Amino acid sequence: MKSEKRAVVLLSGGLDSATVLAIARSEGFECYALSFDYGQRHRCELEAAGRVAAQLGAKSHNTTKIDLRSWGGSALTDDGIEVPDAEESRGIPITYVPARNLIFLSFATAWAEVLGARDIFIGVNSVDYSGYPDCRPKFIEAFRETARLGTRAVDEGWSYQINAPLQNLSKAEIIRRGVALGVDYSLTTSCYNPDASGRSCGRCASCALRSAGFVAAGVPDPTRYVPGK
Amino acid sequence: MKSEKRAVVLLSGGLDSATVLAIARSEGFECYALSFDYGQRHRCELEAAGRVAAQLGAKSHNTTKIDLRSWGGSALTDDGIEVPDAEESRGIPITYVPARNLIFLSFATAWAEVLGARDIFIGVNSVDYSGYPDCRPKFIEAFRETARLGTRAVDEGWSYQINAPLQNLSKAEIIRRGVALGVDYSLTTSCYNPDASGRSCGRCASCALRSAGFVAAGVPDPTRYVPGK
Repeated sequence: MKSEKRAVVLLSGGLDSATVLAIARSEGFECYALSFDYGQRHRCELEAAGRVAAQLGAKSHNTTKIDLRSWGGSALTDDGIEVPDAEESRGIPITYVPARNLIFLSFATAWAEVLGARDIFIGVNSVDYSGYPDCRPKFIEAFRETARLGTRAVDEGWSYQINAPLQNLSKAEIIRRGVALGVDYSLTTSCYNPDASGRSCGRCASCALRSAGFVAAGVPDPTRYVPGK
Repeated sequence: MKSEKRAVVLLSGGLDSATVLAIARSEGFECYALSFDYGQRHRCELEAAGRVAAQLGAKSHNTTKIDLRSWGGSALTDDGIEVPDAEESRGIPITYVPARNLIFLSFATAWAEVLGARDIFIGVNSVDYSGYPDCRPKFIEAFRETARLGTRAVDEGWSYQINAPLQNLSKAEIIRRGVALGVDYSLTTSCYNPDASGRSCGRCASCALRSAGFVAAGVPDPTRYVPGK
């Protein structure tokens, strides 16, 4: 008999998904953390994901290797496209990875089906990432229905829950929530363009959001930045 | 300016998807064939996919490596689960790979977005695979809507077409259609449990369907079976 309280939690190693893991744990879920090695420029986030999974008591941590580099199309997976500074971003950002959350949620659904888990957690956010179509509530709801129809859930009369607890929170609210739940943000990394030792650039859109979030939350920023930031 | 007539075609190396590729070509699409190395027991199908892509004039053939073995859950990806003979199958078969078509279509969407393609072709079939939730029309339609909402399509006011031209065809109809379009079925393989040299077992559900299809179509079966079948 499989537990009803298992959850698959998408864990990138960044600030948001670490907070989501802490929230899922606080709601009593046995958490199966899922990370992806997809050829991302910011690979140090995978080491961060391992540290976060351990600190927050994930039952298991799986890093699935997938190849999104073979067709490129994003500054995060294509060495021919530079990561822009924060102020250059307009519309759908060049750091958008085509269909990334669709792929990530699909793998999460596959693992959930094998585990007998009915809950999936994802750290999408409409406030800071409104330019990313795959971070919006309508996409999350459509995915839930597709996952129901494409798995044994439909024959058994239930549905996956796609939990997106950060959907409407500001970065400062996310940080305050995480601090209250014991997240150690010094273990996380958010930078799109870190240096070889994993220090954050302090210039990309993700660094800008994170840094401003700590200021707004009134929480000291534990991020290691490259000198001269 | 990217062409409007590009299509991503999911190509397994089996009979159905070879037919789909031929159909897409006959409709004038420049075809980008996409196969997956997902740790399947029947890996010889990947070589078959390469042969089929070449024979039918795919513009490009990408084999994406993904890891579905790490969590198992199917006779096709888990060495601890045996492939049953055809007559043992009931309900959702043990050869069902959790969320496989969801994952495959998600990758196809990602590649399509990078290519500027708006059409995706998949060889799902409701007649022979009614036990697989991810082969049903409702799932395909839900996926289309999810792909629209999760990509730049939603901001640009269009939608992907998820073409499933085999949806309601019998195996014999599929074979006749393929023969008319010049598909060389000797290049394809459908067996779930082939021997080391790629010969089909003649006993699994997939072999049984394929073999009966050739008989019903009145087309000589070009499949190489293990001796003693």
